[in-house]
Amino acid sequence: MKKEIIQLQRKMEETSIDYYLVPTSDYHHSEYISSFFKCREYLSGFTGSAGTLLVSRQEAWLWTDGRYYIQAEQELEGTGIVLMKDGMTDVPTISDFLKHNMKSGQVLGFDGRLYTAGFINGLQRKLSAQKIHFIYECDLVNEIWSNRPAISAEPIFCYPEAYAGTSISEKISAYREYLRKYHAQCQLINSLTDIAWLFNLRGHDVACTPVFLAYAYVSIEEVILFVQESALTVDTRAYLEKNNIKIQNYDTFYEFIKQIEHTRMLVDYSDLNYCCYRFLSKTNTLLRASKYTTMAKIIKNDTEIAGTRACHLRDGIYMTKFMYWLKNSIKDRNLSELEAASYIDQLRLADDLALDLSFETISAYGQNAAIVHYSPSAESNAKIEPKGMLLVDSGGQYLDGTTDITRTFILGPITDEERLCYTTTCRSMLHLANAKFLTGCRGSNLDCLAREPMWELGIDFRHGTGHGVGHMLSVHEGPNNFRFRVNAGNLDAVLLPGMITTDEPGIYETGKFGIRIENELLCRKWKRNQYGQFLTFEYLTYAPIDLDGIDSDLMNEQEKSWLNDYHKKVYELISPHLNEEERAWLKIYTRSI
Amino acid sequence: MKKEIIQLQRKMEETSIDYYLVPTSDYHHSEYISSFFKCREYLSGFTGSAGTLLVSRQEAWLWTDGRYYIQAEQELEGTGIVLMKDGMTDVPTISDFLKHNMKSGQVLGFDGRLYTAGFINGLQRKLSAQKIHFIYECDLVNEIWSNRPAISAEPIFCYPEAYAGTSISEKISAYREYLRKYHAQCQLINSLTDIAWLFNLRGHDVACTPVFLAYAYVSIEEVILFVQESALTVDTRAYLEKNNIKIQNYDTFYEFIKQIEHTRMLVDYSDLNYCCYRFLSKTNTLLRASKYTTMAKIIKNDTEIAGTRACHLRDGIYMTKFMYWLKNSIKDRNLSELEAASYIDQLRLADDLALDLSFETISAYGQNAAIVHYSPSAESNAKIEPKGMLLVDSGGQYLDGTTDITRTFILGPITDEERLCYTTTCRSMLHLANAKFLTGCRGSNLDCLAREPMWELGIDFRHGTGHGVGHMLSVHEGPNNFRFRVNAGNLDAVLLPGMITTDEPGIYETGKFGIRIENELLCRKWKRNQYGQFLTFEYLTYAPIDLDGIDSDLMNEQEKSWLNDYHKKVYELISPHLNEEERAWLKIYTRSI
Repeated sequence: MKKEIIQLQRKMEETSIDYYLVPTSDYHHSEYISSFFKCREYLSGFTGSAGTLLVSRQEAWLWTDGRYYIQAEQELEGTGIVLMKDGMTDVPTISDFLKHNMKSGQVLGFDGRLYTAGFINGLQRKLSAQKIHFIYECDLVNEIWSNRPAISAEPIFCYPEAYAGTSISEKISAYREYLRKYHAQCQLINSLTDIAWLFNLRGHDVACTPVFLAYAYVSIEEVILFVQESALTVDTRAYLEKNNIKIQNYDTFYEFIKQIEHTRMLVDYSDLNYCCYRFLSKTNTLLRASKYTTMAKIIKNDTEIAGTRACHLRDGIYMTKFMYWLKNSIKDRNLSELEAASYIDQLRLADDLALDLSFETISAYGQNAAIVHYSPSAESNAKIEPKGMLLVDSGGQYLDGTTDITRTFILGPITDEERLCYTTTCRSMLHLANAKFLTGCRGSNLDCLAREPMWELGIDFRHGTGHGVGHMLSVHEGPNNFRFRVNAGNLDAVLLPGMITTDEPGIYETGKFGIRIENELLCRKWKRNQYGQFLTFEYLTYAPIDLDGIDSDLMNEQEKSWLNDYHKKVYELISPHLNEEERAWLKIYTRSI
Repeated sequence: MKKEIIQLQRKMEETSIDYYLVPTSDYHHSEYISSFFKCREYLSGFTGSAGTLLVSRQEAWLWTDGRYYIQAEQELEGTGIVLMKDGMTDVPTISDFLKHNMKSGQVLGFDGRLYTAGFINGLQRKLSAQKIHFIYECDLVNEIWSNRPAISAEPIFCYPEAYAGTSISEKISAYREYLRKYHAQCQLINSLTDIAWLFNLRGHDVACTPVFLAYAYVSIEEVILFVQESALTVDTRAYLEKNNIKIQNYDTFYEFIKQIEHTRMLVDYSDLNYCCYRFLSKTNTLLRASKYTTMAKIIKNDTEIAGTRACHLRDGIYMTKFMYWLKNSIKDRNLSELEAASYIDQLRLADDLALDLSFETISAYGQNAAIVHYSPSAESNAKIEPKGMLLVDSGGQYLDGTTDITRTFILGPITDEERLCYTTTCRSMLHLANAKFLTGCRGSNLDCLAREPMWELGIDFRHGTGHGVGHMLSVHEGPNNFRFRVNAGNLDAVLLPGMITTDEPGIYETGKFGIRIENELLCRKWKRNQYGQFLTFEYLTYAPIDLDGIDSDLMNEQEKSWLNDYHKKVYELISPHLNEEERAWLKIYTRSI
């Protein structure tokens, strides 16, 4: 067994723990985690972005999903850790595994800050028959990890109202209104994107997401931000003090909440971590309610919308220039996936308002594009030739907004199957984007508009049709999205004006090709009449959809006019920002079909 | 104040009750209620099919919905009862009204058998701050209603396995498997349709629904049917005894459940009545789970499907003959709504296997059709003239199945608006009926396929697009349906092969016209491949859709071919059962457009 696992098992023995769980998570359930939090990687040696390690006194298992089966097999070789391929029909979930293996009276240990209250409460219900003892106030990995990296504490900066549109004081007033509606005294916030949005602050503690490590306490009387004081600049501290925000050290948060007693408070089980929940549930009255910020931050205000339109225009110019470069370069020489990624990344990062990419660029050629979460590495970096297709999914974090766009480019001859699938993907994207709908609709009501053109052919794609997008925050933001598999516990939001959601259907043929076309959509008001307020979408994304992949005979008149109208607008908006050669080329690539 | 209300208020004083609730319900939450249960009508004088009466020591209020505003105003005149128009924005719900008017420590009384556990538990949460005392074991109306009709006890008959397809013993074995899955000992059933289905029995205690008054107790060891012994025929009793079903009197049910103690049992809060819940929740462990029968009875077996196809064919012949009669008669003379209803009703009831209509026939001419729940009465009975449209929504209870069909007939000249709306309604019905979809889809995912052709024009209809249909049971059966407004508490079922759901979009212009076109759809398997099992629908309903209302210029090629394919099948199936004149006429009314 790997020595770090043996060290952990020794600690488990000392503390009478029978099974110990190590997830891939931080105290805030962020999408990406920084090196301080990479305990699972430290113990197992597995470097993938998702997975959970379970250790017993003698054994160890690692669950990870289909993206990482091969990588995990390689990296776990010789460690003695058993790979559990999550999603395979004969592989139990961790909860089921624990239910079948733990004996009555045994002890399960984990760091309760790394799990949501919702998950652990569910696990407790599942294991209720066994009377398992849960030890949650323990970070055993910390005791054995001698060279653990320091926790990130990058400088926090003020996010100007000129971009945010709403002041911190307006947001806090609205939060208090929300608390009063529930006759509640306070709510805690664990989620970093919610904290960044509420305080109009941004940071650099999480990759591709401009947030900073913090907890927040919002009550009727006071607001406290728990933050690493070393990360506060003089300006940021002055701004917080001016706005009557109390500052306390990040480390003191759990002591603070242990002292909250006999208080009526709101609890969001979906992201409040389990330690917070346990400390709070002793004497307080907990009312189930999402955080005010969760719903408030997904309805973009006029300033955020104007900023979003502006950054998408610049982003569209970069994508158009990239497409021009790609389609011309490939005539002369072979390229590589990384070279293509680097080209679009450089265009974006040279923008005056660019802070970062919004996620690692996916540049996937040929059959690599069939792997939905593929990103090129030095090892995988495929050669791009003048045939087939290149899928590029990318975006930027700009001060005025966040972008996410996918285009699939035709680099030379393609097969009839590829052309059918490309045209169908385009039709799918158009059908959803052109929906008219009544207030009350959720994304799950509209998802099938994108899927129906594919389902008619017996084709599906195994990911959501779209996700919400934050404003200079996480590129993946909920709870608005487009997907059809919903249940009572994970219903998507009712769509409302101001919400931004991606529209990104795709077709993936393993070993052959992958196609995805993605535009971002802004929900807007349309007609209002006796039936209520109708809504519609506005495109935020403007960049050509490669007509070389389209077979217009497979599109009906309405679909063709949707595509032609879109391309007309692309030309109008983008062409003034191009040089003469690019402009002439764009005219052809936005022609009516 | 009306004298019955004053009598009730006197009883309330005697029993220290401050507010008393009288809903429109029976102990089983049936869709229609028999005269024994019409307490709300007895007290208030209001005869509508929906409404709740609330009585305080001095006052009384009646809530009813938009269908009944006018009727309730008339019937409540002089009673002293205040009409509360449910659904108007300035009218509070009953829960909100109680929250605002009841004072701390006051007593709310009601007959707990008439409310679901889910509803009362929700009300208790809402009123939790006030510490209201709930008295639920009281039927005050019974104490003052001297001439109360006897409770219905019509003969119960065996429903042959030749129609049911699955024997009572198979169903009970499967129920026990279901209990074992939850490690539960038993479940109670309040719902009459569930009981009728489980025991393969039918009755006549509820209008248009062939069920009988009963409760059932299903445990691992025994099955007890609580039924009025006077309703049991010799055959039925013998059948139950042969199948080891214990028979107990309907009246002894509540004594029985009070004796269930320290048992692990399943509870379906959506239809278990509140009395049951309270008696059971004292010492038993209650596990939230729907009844086995709820999901089992909506997946029709091969025998039920064959019966359904057969009765729909006969029903389609009657509808076609009715249409022929209507379109020809109106050339010669005016008709009336009731005359038209009577004509189709007689055709159905003359069927050898007909038991009843599946609901009161809606025969609505001109602007009457804009009232969604309109049924003609002797007073409203409109004259039908050779112009405009007649909407007929009707169905039959046959031994081999239950039908529900709507057609809107063109009787003479119609306006361009009517033609546009008729064609759009037809397109809506066709789009949903021709859906291809992946297993995992709910009706709420597909509903917008029917609405999108209307939403594109800024039109909507204020009812679900479709509902499940029982098999010789209630014509409205859940939880499969088509609608878009869902929330975590009322999600519709995932669609599965064997489910039957109506597809009935409509357009209603108040004061002008109403159009609805309804076919029933059977969910069936389609392709299976690497993406999973795809599903599709088969039409169960075959009768012409009146081509006199269709403007083919408003339909695309795909829509026209859907309609032509449907009509071709109508002709194939129906024409052999018509006389020569009818057949020649049908050929024209099923022509390709």
